[in-house]
Amino acid sequence: MGDEVEIRFEPEGKTVRIKKGKSVLDAAYEAGILIDAPCGGRGLCGKCKVRIVDEFLPVSPAEERLLTPEEIANGIRLACQFIPQNNLVVELLEPVLEAVQKAELERMVVKLRGKCPISKYFLSLPPPSLSDQRSDEERLLSALPEAKVLTPIVRRDLPRILRESDFKVTAVVLGDEVIAVEKGNTEEEIYGIAIDIGTTTLAGYLVHLPTGRKIASDSRLNPQVAYGADVISRIRYTIDREDGLNEMRNTVIEGVNNLLEDICTYTGVCQDRIYQATIVGNTCMTHFLLGVDARNLAFTPYVPAFTRMVKTRAKTIQLNISPEGWVYVLPNIAGFVGADTVGVILATKLYRRKGNYIAIDIGTNGEMALGTEEGITVCSTAAGPAFEGAHIRFGMHATKGAINRVYISDDVKLSTIDGETPKGICGSGLLDAVAEMYKVGILDYTGRMLSYEEASHLPPSLRERLTTIDGERCFILVRGKENEINRDIYITQKDVRELQLAKGAIRAGIEILLNKKGLSVDDLDGIFLAGAFGNYIRRDSALRIGLLPPLPIDKIYPVGNAAGRGAMMALISPRMLKRAEEIARKCQYIELSALPEFTNYFMDAMYFPL
Amino acid sequence: MGDEVEIRFEPEGKTVRIKKGKSVLDAAYEAGILIDAPCGGRGLCGKCKVRIVDEFLPVSPAEERLLTPEEIANGIRLACQFIPQNNLVVELLEPVLEAVQKAELERMVVKLRGKCPISKYFLSLPPPSLSDQRSDEERLLSALPEAKVLTPIVRRDLPRILRESDFKVTAVVLGDEVIAVEKGNTEEEIYGIAIDIGTTTLAGYLVHLPTGRKIASDSRLNPQVAYGADVISRIRYTIDREDGLNEMRNTVIEGVNNLLEDICTYTGVCQDRIYQATIVGNTCMTHFLLGVDARNLAFTPYVPAFTRMVKTRAKTIQLNISPEGWVYVLPNIAGFVGADTVGVILATKLYRRKGNYIAIDIGTNGEMALGTEEGITVCSTAAGPAFEGAHIRFGMHATKGAINRVYISDDVKLSTIDGETPKGICGSGLLDAVAEMYKVGILDYTGRMLSYEEASHLPPSLRERLTTIDGERCFILVRGKENEINRDIYITQKDVRELQLAKGAIRAGIEILLNKKGLSVDDLDGIFLAGAFGNYIRRDSALRIGLLPPLPIDKIYPVGNAAGRGAMMALISPRMLKRAEEIARKCQYIELSALPEFTNYFMDAMYFPL
Repeated sequence: MGDEVEIRFEPEGKTVRIKKGKSVLDAAYEAGILIDAPCGGRGLCGKCKVRIVDEFLPVSPAEERLLTPEEIANGIRLACQFIPQNNLVVELLEPVLEAVQKAELERMVVKLRGKCPISKYFLSLPPPSLSDQRSDEERLLSALPEAKVLTPIVRRDLPRILRESDFKVTAVVLGDEVIAVEKGNTEEEIYGIAIDIGTTTLAGYLVHLPTGRKIASDSRLNPQVAYGADVISRIRYTIDREDGLNEMRNTVIEGVNNLLEDICTYTGVCQDRIYQATIVGNTCMTHFLLGVDARNLAFTPYVPAFTRMVKTRAKTIQLNISPEGWVYVLPNIAGFVGADTVGVILATKLYRRKGNYIAIDIGTNGEMALGTEEGITVCSTAAGPAFEGAHIRFGMHATKGAINRVYISDDVKLSTIDGETPKGICGSGLLDAVAEMYKVGILDYTGRMLSYEEASHLPPSLRERLTTIDGERCFILVRGKENEINRDIYITQKDVRELQLAKGAIRAGIEILLNKKGLSVDDLDGIFLAGAFGNYIRRDSALRIGLLPPLPIDKIYPVGNAAGRGAMMALISPRMLKRAEEIARKCQYIELSALPEFTNYFMDAMYFPL
Repeated sequence: MGDEVEIRFEPEGKTVRIKKGKSVLDAAYEAGILIDAPCGGRGLCGKCKVRIVDEFLPVSPAEERLLTPEEIANGIRLACQFIPQNNLVVELLEPVLEAVQKAELERMVVKLRGKCPISKYFLSLPPPSLSDQRSDEERLLSALPEAKVLTPIVRRDLPRILRESDFKVTAVVLGDEVIAVEKGNTEEEIYGIAIDIGTTTLAGYLVHLPTGRKIASDSRLNPQVAYGADVISRIRYTIDREDGLNEMRNTVIEGVNNLLEDICTYTGVCQDRIYQATIVGNTCMTHFLLGVDARNLAFTPYVPAFTRMVKTRAKTIQLNISPEGWVYVLPNIAGFVGADTVGVILATKLYRRKGNYIAIDIGTNGEMALGTEEGITVCSTAAGPAFEGAHIRFGMHATKGAINRVYISDDVKLSTIDGETPKGICGSGLLDAVAEMYKVGILDYTGRMLSYEEASHLPPSLRERLTTIDGERCFILVRGKENEINRDIYITQKDVRELQLAKGAIRAGIEILLNKKGLSVDDLDGIFLAGAFGNYIRRDSALRIGLLPPLPIDKIYPVGNAAGRGAMMALISPRMLKRAEEIARKCQYIELSALPEFTNYFMDAMYFPL
């Protein structure tokens, strides 16, 4: 084995052994991870960037040419140039992850795809005359055997479109309806969009419907965050202001439309050629999107107005795709287990796995589902927004400059998103920091932070980071002189408590789900971590602080935005759309706040494992 | 027979023989005509007013008490008091006609009615709790076995309505949809509305759906007349103004909504309790109503945008009934044979009659349908607006003060609508005047009006009415001193020509329909005259001027607003709604302007029969 090295790719969690002398790019191919390398690994294009964790080797001439000094300082290297000498952890960067997930989805859709529900017909119609006075409607419909009805906008626009295009048009048919008529031949352009409306993030996935191929995806902040980080503050806003609900609705649809416009602009796809949309989101977000009062979600017994799937025209909700196209808002399960969880269950195939699996979507709420052979049980825990960076002294969203990895040994090492100088700390950075602080003994198992005086066992480089600011103990991660904001970035005792509350809530949910089904951790075959947060946290850190139960690390699967992927599956496959309804109907929901034992589980789960 | 007299009721055209000594009210009962007489014919209530034509008998004390001198002067008498001494023509007044038609419709609906498509369920739902956290939607739907979907407005309003009514609500179910939810128990209130949108007149019929009973009806001027009397000027307006089509659409829906509001106000029916509507109208009116460009109807080859039935939500067209209720706009047949003609065909049962029948709806256009055992053939003739009173020197709509009957013997006798002093002349008055002028020789068979000099054969009382005004021959009907407007009301030579053009067009249409089917007048089993105009004209006058082919008068049936009645049938009976679609699909349309022979027929038909 002396001539082999082991390479682990994070956050995919895949490990391969390669012969010494092979590159990281070779290792990636062997692991089935598609790193985009248009030049074929010749050190010419500079696309195969990865981050090499904990090892530094001399920079190749190609790297010197293609990477900035900042990148090199942050461990960014070209996979084709880096020849590992020892076992190594390689971190995949955003574009690579994208590519990996895209490839995965493409493999998936080939299996999923049914008949594309949208058909297009290019027609060259005979113009009317006194001996052929058929109405425009009749002229069109009689050339389309399956279609029987014009939608109102087609009925309105048909006379003009026919005459402006010399009676050469493309009809877009869905079921027995003509949902659009376009000038000339547009038969090739048939798109759909899957949308995930998170409390914090909006994500959109543009799909070519006949092939099921993902064309592009993008995400951005949900502009509703201006009304509060959590759903409860937003609901409060809709209660306090007369037009608040409407404002909230307009804000989210505007955000979605902007996202859509951007995706269409850089792909060159015309928005009017998108004929179908699937939307997932938590229950409150789907209420807001449809302009439905969500106030009863804010008060016990937390009753949503609706849970079933909603099928509506794009024009009805002002979604800027083909106006008569259909939008499917996937069903919710309960007040705090929404359509996004249905998407996660779809994407992780929890509904048909043999064995016992848990899927967790960690965000402001931690929604989780336990799939056993008896069915699916779900619950939601109010993790609070700590994982989103809220209520944390230097907390921030997972955007450029956020500390997202922390390693503590003799000193503190950290990385930031996009390798920029640190501005603050995002959820995965916080989790890492706390886990590492516990590892080296800065925190005890109850979460208490040691004072400088107590921490005599620490090396000075760490010990001197312990201080008291505004009467509160804290641990300095980055000194002011080393960062963007010109002041120390530190973790406070209160930050640690916030994280403990959040992780305690989630862990309690997991324990209760298992308990309700008479299972223990040993019966668990795997945990899927969904969502951006779940995708980027270090699993060893999550295990160390006890966010997750003690399971072998290779049974923990980060699955990325599974909610969005579920929405894409429902977009591509009518069978999956139906499955989504079944899932929502059959899931058993547990209301944690109604369980007297919840508090005990919660208290126990707040501590760190010994 | 000496002790019997014959009483003919106009415009119903029913004749009965009664023993001398019986009253006109008795005669009406015998003829099956329901004259409203709450006092039972005792001369107490004064409700059984009729007009006695051409006979004057002494006024009874009851009449003296209950009638005004003006009424008596205009021939208005009480049916219960008037004991005919000779054969007599009795004219039924508006309220009586209403009652007659209502009774007729009620007899009809008993046969027509299927299962009412709307169901209402009063529900007393269990309020939510932590052990029953079902969504509001689920709570409602699980109490309604047939319903599966909430409509958007119900989804939006349900949380509020449930809580404001202590979870005691009435659900309105149509098919698998809940289209409304109302506070408390409203199970009894289920209404529908049938609407006839004429170029000139809007008519509405409010129906109690479970029983099929007509509750009320009303009509008013189509406010679009402000944009022109005929459809072509209105289409021109939509072409010339950027927002013209929208303006035209808003005008008609506002008119319909005002009509609806009035009907609901005086019946005490809540507009939100109307869940279904059927609408008929000519092709241009249905285009305007739906906001569809009708410009291609104005130019050869006169192509409509659509002809098929349109099913749409009330909210979509802003019709102020229950917003999620369904509106059916009945199908059109061709550019100038609209849904109103489909209504006429439905109401006259032309689609299943044995024998050959023609139904004519005379308005600005004369749409007509010939039903034979081989099917139905339709055409439309551009009669022009003469019958509506337009382009006539003293022409006016058939409203209060319009001369509607003219009798000429030694002198001119006339009646007006509501017995008011004459203000002008409406279509039926014009037709009467011309027919009578031809009868006594004031007009020759070509329609030429004799000059005073030529008319030496006339009695002086008539001859002195012939004069020349502004260089044009004319015949004075009412002297200025005898009328409201303080000036002579007369018929000009040009008025006669306008009428000739109008009646020539209609007669030519009838002849061509017969000819296309290889039929002659002798093969014809009857003619139905639909529409207000057809209902009120004197059939002998129509025959005298040759508007209708020479048929025995008792084979000509005035049928009132058959288009509206057809709409009502489709409202009450899903079977009839389907029948309407069949009729529109199967009718054979003849485009008269494409027939070279039309001009000949038209020229021949302009003259008066010798």
